[in-house]
Amino acid sequence: MQFLSDNAAAVHPAVWEALKAADSPDSPYDGDALSAALDERFAQVFGKPCTVLWTATGTAANCLALATLVQPHGAVVCHEEAHIEVDEGGAPGFFLHGAKLILCEGAGAKLSPQAIRDAIDPIRDDVHQVQPHAISITQASEYGCSYRPAEVEEIAALARERRLGLHMDGARFANAVAFLDCAPSAVAGPVDALSFGFIKNGGLGAEAIVFFDRNLADVARYRRKRAGHLQSKGRFLAAQLHAMLEGDVWLHNARHANAAAQEIAQACDGRLMYPVEANELFVRCTVAERDALRDRGFGFYDWGEDAARFVTAWNTRDEDAVSLAKAIASL
Amino acid sequence: MQFLSDNAAAVHPAVWEALKAADSPDSPYDGDALSAALDERFAQVFGKPCTVLWTATGTAANCLALATLVQPHGAVVCHEEAHIEVDEGGAPGFFLHGAKLILCEGAGAKLSPQAIRDAIDPIRDDVHQVQPHAISITQASEYGCSYRPAEVEEIAALARERRLGLHMDGARFANAVAFLDCAPSAVAGPVDALSFGFIKNGGLGAEAIVFFDRNLADVARYRRKRAGHLQSKGRFLAAQLHAMLEGDVWLHNARHANAAAQEIAQACDGRLMYPVEANELFVRCTVAERDALRDRGFGFYDWGEDAARFVTAWNTRDEDAVSLAKAIASL
Amino acid sequence: MQFLSDNAAAVHPAVWEALKAADSPDSPYDGDALSAALDERFAQVFGKPCTVLWTATGTAANCLALATLVQPHGAVVCHEEAHIEVDEGGAPGFFLHGAKLILCEGAGAKLSPQAIRDAIDPIRDDVHQVQPHAISITQASEYGCSYRPAEVEEIAALARERRLGLHMDGARFANAVAFLDCAPSAVAGPVDALSFGFIKNGGLGAEAIVFFDRNLADVARYRRKRAGHLQSKGRFLAAQLHAMLEGDVWLHNARHANAAAQEIAQACDGRLMYPVEANELFVRCTVAERDALRDRGFGFYDWGEDAARFVTAWNTRDEDAVSLAKAIASL
Amino acid sequence: MQFLSDNAAAVHPAVWEALKAADSPDSPYDGDALSAALDERFAQVFGKPCTVLWTATGTAANCLALATLVQPHGAVVCHEEAHIEVDEGGAPGFFLHGAKLILCEGAGAKLSPQAIRDAIDPIRDDVHQVQPHAISITQASEYGCSYRPAEVEEIAALARERRLGLHMDGARFANAVAFLDCAPSAVAGPVDALSFGFIKNGGLGAEAIVFFDRNLADVARYRRKRAGHLQSKGRFLAAQLHAMLEGDVWLHNARHANAAAQEIAQACDGRLMYPVEANELFVRCTVAERDALRDRGFGFYDWGEDAARFVTAWNTRDEDAVSLAKAIASL
Repeated sequence: MQFLSDNAAAVHPAVWEALKAADSPDSPYDGDALSAALDERFAQVFGKPCTVLWTATGTAANCLALATLVQPHGAVVCHEEAHIEVDEGGAPGFFLHGAKLILCEGAGAKLSPQAIRDAIDPIRDDVHQVQPHAISITQASEYGCSYRPAEVEEIAALARERRLGLHMDGARFANAVAFLDCAPSAVAGPVDALSFGFIKNGGLGAEAIVFFDRNLADVARYRRKRAGHLQSKGRFLAAQLHAMLEGDVWLHNARHANAAAQEIAQACDGRLMYPVEANELFVRCTVAERDALRDRGFGFYDWGEDAARFVTAWNTRDEDAVSLAKAIASL
Repeated sequence: MQFLSDNAAAVHPAVWEALKAADSPDSPYDGDALSAALDERFAQVFGKPCTVLWTATGTAANCLALATLVQPHGAVVCHEEAHIEVDEGGAPGFFLHGAKLILCEGAGAKLSPQAIRDAIDPIRDDVHQVQPHAISITQASEYGCSYRPAEVEEIAALARERRLGLHMDGARFANAVAFLDCAPSAVAGPVDALSFGFIKNGGLGAEAIVFFDRNLADVARYRRKRAGHLQSKGRFLAAQLHAMLEGDVWLHNARHANAAAQEIAQACDGRLMYPVEANELFVRCTVAERDALRDRGFGFYDWGEDAARFVTAWNTRDEDAVSLAKAIASL
Repeated sequence: MQFLSDNAAAVHPAVWEALKAADSPDSPYDGDALSAALDERFAQVFGKPCTVLWTATGTAANCLALATLVQPHGAVVCHEEAHIEVDEGGAPGFFLHGAKLILCEGAGAKLSPQAIRDAIDPIRDDVHQVQPHAISITQASEYGCSYRPAEVEEIAALARERRLGLHMDGARFANAVAFLDCAPSAVAGPVDALSFGFIKNGGLGAEAIVFFDRNLADVARYRRKRAGHLQSKGRFLAAQLHAMLEGDVWLHNARHANAAAQEIAQACDGRLMYPVEANELFVRCTVAERDALRDRGFGFYDWGEDAARFVTAWNTRDEDAVSLAKAIASL
Repeated sequence: MQFLSDNAAAVHPAVWEALKAADSPDSPYDGDALSAALDERFAQVFGKPCTVLWTATGTAANCLALATLVQPHGAVVCHEEAHIEVDEGGAPGFFLHGAKLILCEGAGAKLSPQAIRDAIDPIRDDVHQVQPHAISITQASEYGCSYRPAEVEEIAALARERRLGLHMDGARFANAVAFLDCAPSAVAGPVDALSFGFIKNGGLGAEAIVFFDRNLADVARYRRKRAGHLQSKGRFLAAQLHAMLEGDVWLHNARHANAAAQEIAQACDGRLMYPVEANELFVRCTVAERDALRDRGFGFYDWGEDAARFVTAWNTRDEDAVSLAKAIASL
């Protein structure tokens, strides 16, 4: 019973079908019909025009998006636990040509306007210090917390005021939207670029970068090729995205994962480090408790010395979630 | 009847099977069993130890390989028509941090030791001029010509003499090996890193970088993540490579494509710009002749003003090749 | 009697005086009064507003200027013999983060609109090929030829039409202006950024980047610091520029060097490879002839196998120029 | 009476003399006799072979040195207040192609082996996290504290153990050596590369990068040109370095500045934030106290809300130091 991560989960049947259906030759790269239809398809999701590029990884999505918002001599403001800072092998440094990450604190790995101001206000407006060019927030956050629409809007207002770009790392965007039960545009509407994740949610190897400014997308298009991320059989990436959007598979999958997380959360009374607002749980427990859980067959990561991280996925079985909940309750 | 390119061709059934078979969760990234088995699998192919990294594109494979051989202040020696120079959107400049490409001439887009010497000997050994760090050759070349084992060895000897790295862009390595009817190691043995292409030959989205020096691979591993090319469900890339090697699918596919090319070549008497030594044909023909071919339903690219490029693929139907041959013969 | 290069020539007395005069502490970096006065001082020279940054080398001036006009995924169009391509150790690749140089041919190392079009028109407007972002021309050219005002204007018109930036490498801008006997703005007016050279013309270690668009300068300011080119005692660089402009030292020096070059040119009947329009002469002569000249005490560089390059400087002695002229005439 | 910084101080007379004496043409760039003599001259200082490159700024010296020790996918371990992190406009990101800085804490802006271990031990040895390649320490530190020889050796031992390069930012190396009253090699001996500062100590615009491994210097040589830092009249930079070493001007100057700092320190009882081990004082004082000092004609920077920074220089007048001491004592 694996709760290690959603990032290696199985592929959704609808994705497999779409992949097979895409196996008739079409124009290479992103010249195929499926890729061409992405803009319109995502515009339906967001209720406004957008330009969409597929990529094979979330790291590439994040970095290509940021490269359109940040000059090499500038900086990205992000949380100190942000994936781009902690877990992408320095990819932002590569894609942004040495631009800096300015790190902020914030409960639940969420940024607040105040935390951002605290980080950037002390920066002297001179050439000796790197100036911020953009803000990046993660939805849901690295600790499974979701920004409310009003929170995103406040950060967006600050970004506009300071003339900063705004990027959303939506590796688990679906889980956040499902949790918030809001329109996708309610949380992504104010951003310039969204990394819309599908791989953790049932895809095989396709994420979307959604640009709400066509000019940014036009830059990203060149950068994507330059980064070796323009696959020649791009139809197979586009097909995955269509499959996930069709019939709201992305939302159904996310709701399922979230529900499993809630099931487990109910058993974690007093143990939760953060509110469970997506499909991740950070649960205080001792080494002995973790050993006990592992003895019962549960897979998960240690989180520091006194906690464990459990991640549910689109295909987590109900009975497994129930079992884990019971096991935790009985600790 | 498409002869536009092999890069958007259908996916081989064995690859589909392997993909589906890989759809049980395993460790993420390249921690899965299939990825772990690649080194040994490719060592069988080359008859010597090697370290293998999958990537989703040939551009990424080429540039990650070169990044292990070339410092940012150095240069890659390549043909002026090399894919890395002409068709990768400046990716070498990105991955190599501004390293230069030193361009050589050579018939059939092939380099010779003499052409390399002509290009690098005039470079003064001082800091004002960019010094070569590596050589990159394409097998089969951009004009469908294959380096003989002795030719590769001569270039490798020059590389050793000048202390240059040697990279082989093997986007159509299978076609070259099939044409040469030699052991893979006979042409790739002397290189430091090989981009071993599978996508044009029946894969969906997986190429291999084969390093014959583990230290280089260890650098590339970090660079791959840093470039956003480490996919979380890497098992699906590894699976493709295994499927292509199993039962020599890669060679069967390449032989089929080559045979189709030879079928067509026989009809091109006097029209061929280059010997047909893989699966590409560059055929002199007038605009009127090209119109005539297109009227009969053949798809292909113009090549300059007086020629056409035809590419066969692993799944080119025999009857289509025969039809095209007849059509050309009747021009 | 040295005619090797102007780049190691002595420092003009006015520069020494200005340096000593600047040796009272002032604000560090470019916060001093002399640096602050540069914009206005150069505006007088060009008859229009400009923003000026000092740098210690022409390579830095060129590359910082270009970095404001070219995105990392773009390219600079320049002559195949341009200093930025041939003699700057790959600095454009470093400063422009891997942007490419698109090379053009052209007599006397000068670009023409036609040569530029020939180079960029075949570039497909797709992501696989690197798109031009700017043009760089050298005034006077690497072969000592000067663009006439109308020639610069034609190139500028093409740049505007194609939405390309325009940079002028003016390492020997003074020599060109002196030769053309025109207003500086007549040749630099239409460019976006000018590397205005002073070091070869009597300076110690200060060049100027003249921006005619303040926004570009504001980017360059950050890039200059980021490249380690913001000297803490910047007043000494500003002082040099003021000294060179004061009383038109820059023009007097250039006229002197040009006159010496013309003196020599008169003796080179039939031997000149290029018209002498600045302070450089490229003179056909055999090995034996060069040996003879060296035996008489003249220092100069060989230029390929059949020619020599002679460069005059602001402090070339009249008698030395006359001697060289006689020596060449007597060959 | 300025105590703002030493970085804009006047130029030492010996430097002026050497500059003027160097004003006879010699080979350009670093081909001149003065540049050629640097290795041997510095070898005398350090009592062992070294290879020395001049640069115009400390930022360039630091970054060129680090670029020889750190691959783009690696990281530099440094103090969170290190100049390279805080005050170089992102230059390390530029020169190191996006390599990261790993920040450590430490009293007085000094690193300790433990602080380094605390920072790097939690880094998982996998490709998702950026691995350290080198350590950079500042001597004297950004808070005017000097590493004792044993402290440097401990850090060097850790560096060797972890196979990390070791760089010393010696912008105020002279002040540290003067304070420690030790042989230069006692503190710089164990490092791979030293940025040896002269500009704050009486130079005009020349620093030295001292490499104790010739191979590193050979890389830096190319990188220096590539960064536009190879000045054509390099003899003027070499001349400054020789002038500063001749007769131990560098040490005399540093001792003078340090003595002035000690003079002031004696008056700061209970106010000093850090021990005064070079030429900088960080002094707790209220806004009213600072106003009072400024009213008496003392120039200095505020340091946060409750302190002031005073910096003495090689040419601080004794009476000014005494005046400041009295003024502080009388607060």
